[in-house]
Amino acid sequence: MTSIDLNCDLGESFGNFHIGNDEEVLGLVTSANIATGFHAGDPLVMLTTVRRAKENSVRIGAHVGYRDLPGFGRRFIDYDLDQLTAEVLYQIGALQAACRATGTEVEYVKPHGALYNRIARDAKQAQAVIAGMKLADPQLALMGLAGSPVLGWAEEAGLPTISETFADRAYEKDGSLVPRSQPGAIHDSDEKATEQALNFALDKPITAVDGSDVQVVADSICVHGDNPHALHLVRAIRDTLSHNGIAVSS
Amino acid sequence: MTSIDLNCDLGESFGNFHIGNDEEVLGLVTSANIATGFHAGDPLVMLTTVRRAKENSVRIGAHVGYRDLPGFGRRFIDYDLDQLTAEVLYQIGALQAACRATGTEVEYVKPHGALYNRIARDAKQAQAVIAGMKLADPQLALMGLAGSPVLGWAEEAGLPTISETFADRAYEKDGSLVPRSQPGAIHDSDEKATEQALNFALDKPITAVDGSDVQVVADSICVHGDNPHALHLVRAIRDTLSHNGIAVSS
Amino acid sequence: MTSIDLNCDLGESFGNFHIGNDEEVLGLVTSANIATGFHAGDPLVMLTTVRRAKENSVRIGAHVGYRDLPGFGRRFIDYDLDQLTAEVLYQIGALQAACRATGTEVEYVKPHGALYNRIARDAKQAQAVIAGMKLADPQLALMGLAGSPVLGWAEEAGLPTISETFADRAYEKDGSLVPRSQPGAIHDSDEKATEQALNFALDKPITAVDGSDVQVVADSICVHGDNPHALHLVRAIRDTLSHNGIAVSS
Amino acid sequence: MTSIDLNCDLGESFGNFHIGNDEEVLGLVTSANIATGFHAGDPLVMLTTVRRAKENSVRIGAHVGYRDLPGFGRRFIDYDLDQLTAEVLYQIGALQAACRATGTEVEYVKPHGALYNRIARDAKQAQAVIAGMKLADPQLALMGLAGSPVLGWAEEAGLPTISETFADRAYEKDGSLVPRSQPGAIHDSDEKATEQALNFALDKPITAVDGSDVQVVADSICVHGDNPHALHLVRAIRDTLSHNGIAVSS
Repeated sequence: MTSIDLNCDLGESFGNFHIGNDEEVLGLVTSANIATGFHAGDPLVMLTTVRRAKENSVRIGAHVGYRDLPGFGRRFIDYDLDQLTAEVLYQIGALQAACRATGTEVEYVKPHGALYNRIARDAKQAQAVIAGMKLADPQLALMGLAGSPVLGWAEEAGLPTISETFADRAYEKDGSLVPRSQPGAIHDSDEKATEQALNFALDKPITAVDGSDVQVVADSICVHGDNPHALHLVRAIRDTLSHNGIAVSS
Repeated sequence: MTSIDLNCDLGESFGNFHIGNDEEVLGLVTSANIATGFHAGDPLVMLTTVRRAKENSVRIGAHVGYRDLPGFGRRFIDYDLDQLTAEVLYQIGALQAACRATGTEVEYVKPHGALYNRIARDAKQAQAVIAGMKLADPQLALMGLAGSPVLGWAEEAGLPTISETFADRAYEKDGSLVPRSQPGAIHDSDEKATEQALNFALDKPITAVDGSDVQVVADSICVHGDNPHALHLVRAIRDTLSHNGIAVSS
Repeated sequence: MTSIDLNCDLGESFGNFHIGNDEEVLGLVTSANIATGFHAGDPLVMLTTVRRAKENSVRIGAHVGYRDLPGFGRRFIDYDLDQLTAEVLYQIGALQAACRATGTEVEYVKPHGALYNRIARDAKQAQAVIAGMKLADPQLALMGLAGSPVLGWAEEAGLPTISETFADRAYEKDGSLVPRSQPGAIHDSDEKATEQALNFALDKPITAVDGSDVQVVADSICVHGDNPHALHLVRAIRDTLSHNGIAVSS
Repeated sequence: MTSIDLNCDLGESFGNFHIGNDEEVLGLVTSANIATGFHAGDPLVMLTTVRRAKENSVRIGAHVGYRDLPGFGRRFIDYDLDQLTAEVLYQIGALQAACRATGTEVEYVKPHGALYNRIARDAKQAQAVIAGMKLADPQLALMGLAGSPVLGWAEEAGLPTISETFADRAYEKDGSLVPRSQPGAIHDSDEKATEQALNFALDKPITAVDGSDVQVVADSICVHGDNPHALHLVRAIRDTLSHNGIAVSS
C-alpha cells in the first residue's frame, strides 16, 4: 500500500511561553520533530511531548537548532564547527534520555530553521551536524530538504535519510523551494496544497511555479499546527490521502 | 587494600570563560563531576572533558545544577518539581550521549552548589532529583553530603549512594559541616586537611571543630583544582595517602 | 472627581514567543508595567510597547524581575543583594533609554512575580530593590502590594509609592490576599470583581473572604489582558467605574 | 601637546566567570569599553567597572555586542535589523543608568567582536547600530576600525567618530588589518608594537606588512589587559609615549 509520512515541529513551548497545539497535532501526524531546548522547548516540555508522541505511536525526531532562544533558531550563526557538533550531540542526547525514560527512541534528526537551511547547501556546517549525529547514534536518519546536497552528504557518511517536502510551498522547476521573499512562495489555496501533498504521496510530479512539471522525492511532508488554519489544512491533507487509498505512516 | 576516591568538579568553562585546571586535575583524581551545561560548562567543554576523563581512566559523574548560569548554580531556586526532574534527566542524558560517543559511561550524579545543599535536607527537591536519576538510569549512584538525609532517601529509592566528605572543611561534632559563614569553617593549614583526608580514608574518626572525635562515612573526598594552592593540596593528599599504603581509586 | 488607576503587565513577548493582547489592553488601562527583559520581554518588544504606551497616553512603569526567563520570574531566587540592586538599575536603565528615545519617561517600578511577592515582606531584597531604584532615579514610585511592609520601607527611603490592589482576588480580613492555593482565592464571578474594583475606587471597604468588611488602600488596580475573558473583565470594570462617575486615570 | 587615547575592553566577567585584570588596566588606559551584558559582563560587574573607571578618570564607552554569551559575541549573527537597533539602545541605556548613578556618562560606543567587524563594512547592520546610538544619545561617538566605511556612515548620520588602531596588529598597505588567519598578523615583538603605537600617536606613517609606508588615522589605540604579557605591553607603550613627550588622554 502506498504511504507517506507527515511530520510537524512540536514541543516548542518554553516555560510560560506557549506555542502550538501539540495535543491535536499528535493525533494527525506520524513523525514529531521535538524541540531540544536550544532554539525552543524546555526539559519538561520535551519530556511531556515525548510521552504524548509515544501514546500516539508517533515517530520521534530530534529538532536540533542553533543555541538562539531570542532568535528562535531562525538566524544564521557562524559557528565554530566543533562546538556545533558537540551541541548536536548534546541535544540529541537529552532527547534520547527522555525517550529511554518513556520506552521509546529517537529515530531521526531534523535540524531547525536557519540550521536546516544552512546545511542544505553548506558542506562545513552539514558535516558538523552529521558528525554530531554519528557520535550520538549512527542509525539516526537525517531529515532534510528534498533535492538538497545535504542528503547526499549524509548518505556518504552512512546515515539513512528522509527527503522532506512541503505541501504549502511552491517549488521551482529544478525542485528547489521558491524563496519566501518571492510572490507565490506559499500556496494560498488549501486545494493546491492538498493536491501537491497527494502528488508527493503518489510519487507523481508536482506543478512548479512556472507551470512546468517537476518530480520531487518525498519521504515525508512537513505540516504545521500552530494555528487553526494550519490544523484545518492537515486534516484536509489526511482526508485527501485517505480518500485516495494512501496510508499515513512513518 | 584500603582505598579512597578523590572527586573534583570539572568541565566548568563556558565558551570564552575559562575556569579550572582540568588537565592537571584529571591526573590526580579518580572521579570527575562534569558540569552539564545548566550552571556551568558547554557542550564542547563537556565532550572534551569526557574524552580527557576517559584517557585518564577517571570515573565520570554528572554534575547537574539549577538552570542558573548567572549565579553559577549557587543560589537556591524554588523550582517546580516536575521541571526539576525533567532538567536532571535532560542534563544526565546530554552527558550520557557524550560518554557513549567516547566509549564510557556516566556512573553517578553529584548535584552542584545550591542544589547539592538543598537536597541534602529538603525531601521534595531531593525526590525530584532522585526521580530524574531513575528515569535516566536506575543504576546511577547519588553522590551526596556524608551524614545527610538525602543518602537515605536515595537508598530507599533503590539507588546506590556515595558518601562525600571534604578534606579542607571543619566538621561539627554531629558530623555536619561547619557553615562557611563561621570562623574556622575552612582548614587554613594543609597539614590539617591532609590529616583529615587520611582519617577519612582509614575510616577513623576526625577531630570536630570543638575538639571532639566524630566518625564520618567517607566514600569519596572532594578536592578542588581551580588555583595553584588547591592543586598543591591535592598532591599533598595523594602523597600522604600513598605513604600510608592507601590506594586512590573510585 | 474620584479617579482610580488601572495597571496591566505588558510587553511580555520574547522573540517568536508571543504573550498577551497588548494593543487592545493599552486602550483600556492607564499604567503599563513593561517587562524589561529579565523574566520576559526583549529589547524590540520593549521599545515597541513603549511607543504604543505613549500613543495611548499610558503611564509607563518598569516591570523588573528576577533574571529567570525559563521560570518567567515566578520562582524565588536567593539573590546576592548587590547583584539584585545592580540588576534593578540595569533593567530600569534599559527602559529609561527606550522612553527617552520615545519622548516619554519611566514613572514607577513594579517588581514582577516572585520578586514582587518576596519584597512585600522580605526587608533585605526589598532594600536591594529600593537601592536600585534610587540609583536609577529617586523620583521613581514603587508600586507594591497594598498593606505590605515594602510600601513603608520605600517611603522611609524617600520614594513615592503606589498601593496596588486586585479586582479578582479575594482578601483576608486583615487586608492581605487569600493565597492562590486556597479555595475562593480568585473571584469566579465578574460581578464580584467589578464590585470590588468599584469599592477600591470609592475608597470604600470591600468584603473579605470571611464576610467581614476590610478597608484596603488602592491607588491602582491590577488587571490582566492575556485572554479574552480577562479583556472582557477589564471592559466591565471600566464600564462600571464610568457609570459611577469615576475617572480612570494614573 | 600631542596626545593619544588608549582604550581597552573591560568589565567582561560574568558571575563566577572571571576575565581580565580590570583594576590594573584602569590605571593605564584612558578609555574603557565596558561590556553591557549581551556578549559578556553582568549588571554588577558593569556597575563596579563604571565606578572604578570614574575613580580613575577614565572615559566610558558602551561595548555593545550580539546577544551571544556562549559565543562571546565573536560569531556573526544574521540579525533582524530592528532587533539590532533595539538591542543597541537597550545596552547603552543600561550603561547610561550605571553612569548616571555614578555621576559620570557614556561618551562613546564601541561595538564588540563580530559586530565590530561586521559593521566596519556591512551598511545594513552598521545603520542599525547607528540608529540605536542616535535613539540613545545623538552626542555619542562611534569608535570603529580606522579606515573602514562605518566611520563615514556615522559621520553622515551626524555622530562623532573615533578612529581606532591596534598597536600589535600588522597593517596592509591600504591601511586595513592583516587578517588574523595570515602569518605576521600579530606583531610578536613588543618593540614593533611600541614603535607602531608611537607612530600612530605622532600621526606618522607606519610600516605595512609589505614594507611600504602607510598612513592610518589613529584617534585611539586598542590595548589588552587579560594576561601578564598584555599588561607589560601596555606599560611599555605608555613609557615610550611618555619619553617622547606624548600625553595619554581621551
